[in-house]
Amino acid sequence: MLARPTDDSSSEIARAIPWDGGLDGILEAAGDVDVVTFDHDPADPSVPQALIDAGVVVRPGVRALELAADKLAQRRALRDAGLPVPPFAEVAAPEDVDGFAAEHGWPLVLKAASGGYDGRGVVFADGPDAAQAVLAGASGRWLAEPRLPLERELAVMVARRPSGERVTYPVVESVQRDGMCREVLVPAPVAPELAAEAAAIAGRIAELVELAGVMAVELFVVDDRIVINELACRTHNSGHHSIEMCTTSQFENHLRAVLDWPLGATDPRAPAAVMVNVVAVDDDHDPARFVDCALAVPGAHVHVYGKRPRRERKVGHVTALGPDLDDAGRRARAAAAALTGEVPG
Amino acid sequence: MLARPTDDSSSEIARAIPWDGGLDGILEAAGDVDVVTFDHDPADPSVPQALIDAGVVVRPGVRALELAADKLAQRRALRDAGLPVPPFAEVAAPEDVDGFAAEHGWPLVLKAASGGYDGRGVVFADGPDAAQAVLAGASGRWLAEPRLPLERELAVMVARRPSGERVTYPVVESVQRDGMCREVLVPAPVAPELAAEAAAIAGRIAELVELAGVMAVELFVVDDRIVINELACRTHNSGHHSIEMCTTSQFENHLRAVLDWPLGATDPRAPAAVMVNVVAVDDDHDPARFVDCALAVPGAHVHVYGKRPRRERKVGHVTALGPDLDDAGRRARAAAAALTGEVPG
Repeated sequence: MLARPTDDSSSEIARAIPWDGGLDGILEAAGDVDVVTFDHDPADPSVPQALIDAGVVVRPGVRALELAADKLAQRRALRDAGLPVPPFAEVAAPEDVDGFAAEHGWPLVLKAASGGYDGRGVVFADGPDAAQAVLAGASGRWLAEPRLPLERELAVMVARRPSGERVTYPVVESVQRDGMCREVLVPAPVAPELAAEAAAIAGRIAELVELAGVMAVELFVVDDRIVINELACRTHNSGHHSIEMCTTSQFENHLRAVLDWPLGATDPRAPAAVMVNVVAVDDDHDPARFVDCALAVPGAHVHVYGKRPRRERKVGHVTALGPDLDDAGRRARAAAAALTGEVPG
Repeated sequence: MLARPTDDSSSEIARAIPWDGGLDGILEAAGDVDVVTFDHDPADPSVPQALIDAGVVVRPGVRALELAADKLAQRRALRDAGLPVPPFAEVAAPEDVDGFAAEHGWPLVLKAASGGYDGRGVVFADGPDAAQAVLAGASGRWLAEPRLPLERELAVMVARRPSGERVTYPVVESVQRDGMCREVLVPAPVAPELAAEAAAIAGRIAELVELAGVMAVELFVVDDRIVINELACRTHNSGHHSIEMCTTSQFENHLRAVLDWPLGATDPRAPAAVMVNVVAVDDDHDPARFVDCALAVPGAHVHVYGKRPRRERKVGHVTALGPDLDDAGRRARAAAAALTGEVPG
């Protein structure tokens, strides 16, 4: 849908603005565009507000970005709206943690209110000493939550445009290991009622934050009930499958949404899809050198990002569609293993 | 599948080499790559051979590019291989044309052996005077063919890698007007035997030219029989539907093929697809300004190329998938009309 401008170009549709020019560079590049959006969480959280102050249209709006970036503000806003969040409390001092633990028991999860990503800024504490060590060695605001007995994690990608149209992607299961998403199963293998509840919650949050763009809502399933985990107001790892699996990808719908254009259908193109992240095993083995091996797996859609490999860094992903999760999963895992050099389990 | 290199990049997979540096610039850019290919017919036909002379691996090979660029050499090679080409003769002087017409009758088609594209270099001549005027006003080598009573035009996209693996895309109908492809119907609404014959011919040509890449074989249907029209050894307008319609697009399979990587499946994702070219009506009405209108058509996949509009210039295309050609065609035509400002017929 998008074209890079050329000398002989027509109306320009999209343009990449690099971060390395700083706020001045971004403001200059944004001077003649209709709308600015982000494909990552903003590297500098003050930039969106500075752009707005300069009269630039920023989508998703500052409220959505704020709530995605500040877990404490987010928990409060969602709780106040009657949405299912886990018990939580801001913890600034050891006695705050002790008070929360007295009510909810140990172990606890301590989360940095901002700056966390892929498990960073999330610490499990078995008792008061561990909790105190975390707070003593950290800066910023923290919140405590009980460590929930998770059955599984779900994610729902929703797209909404300013004039109100909204579409929801299939509810997926996000399979985590060591705090990082490893696989995404589409659709999530859960009861239809639970999937419908997950989709409804994502829709309510999209309205609450007046979303203009795409948003991933990450959810826990605890005792067959849904609890909200996190929001990400951008294209998200849990939606990468949509490139091949859905009529319209999360990337295209994000752009449509921020431009207030009609949103595209999110229908699945196959009964099932599995997305497997390609996580580098060390600094030497570059998955990009093994794309040919991965492509030998029938039906494997191989994406490498051109990032230098580093242990535990996501450097690509593979998606496979199939008649069921088992078939799609075997293909996607085999191709991902060919890239990383690991033997599938 | 492909990533642009960054400062923090891993093994580079693909790089665009611009033509505007001339042969020296291309040779320099090609110095450290494994293989060079083309996404257009080479702007300067001597470049591929110059690259090969400099030790660069070029795919598809020079033989395939030569036959695609020289209609006379192509006709001879295909005829000699026993493949169905129309009657033809090289015509350098009026008496050559008269001799051909004495055997095959008027009207004739005169074709420039090289340089033609989208109807340019193809002239219909009703009689000797018209033919003589064409040859008198033209340079280069020309060939004459009878004007065939076409029932329809088909196209087959085939991909082949140097080690021999080959895949064939669904046989499509190319709907032409004024010498330009306007629509592509997938699959072509023809008898299965005819489609199978078309696919078999494309496969034989791929082997004959030792194709390494993708090739579009354009075919005429005359009296329920197939006659070869043209070859294009590159991604082609008749294969644009594959972006959404097929498991692996022509663009991805071209890159896989020139890298001698495993080819991807070409299965259709829906019973039918229609691709409609977006052809500018004048210099002022820029289809890129109406993308939002086109996207309001459910299921329309809108592509605009960022080219400045000019009457009869292809500046984009729309593909729609559907349960049948009628449904897909109505959606694709409606979206294309929204872009050009025309009312669908």
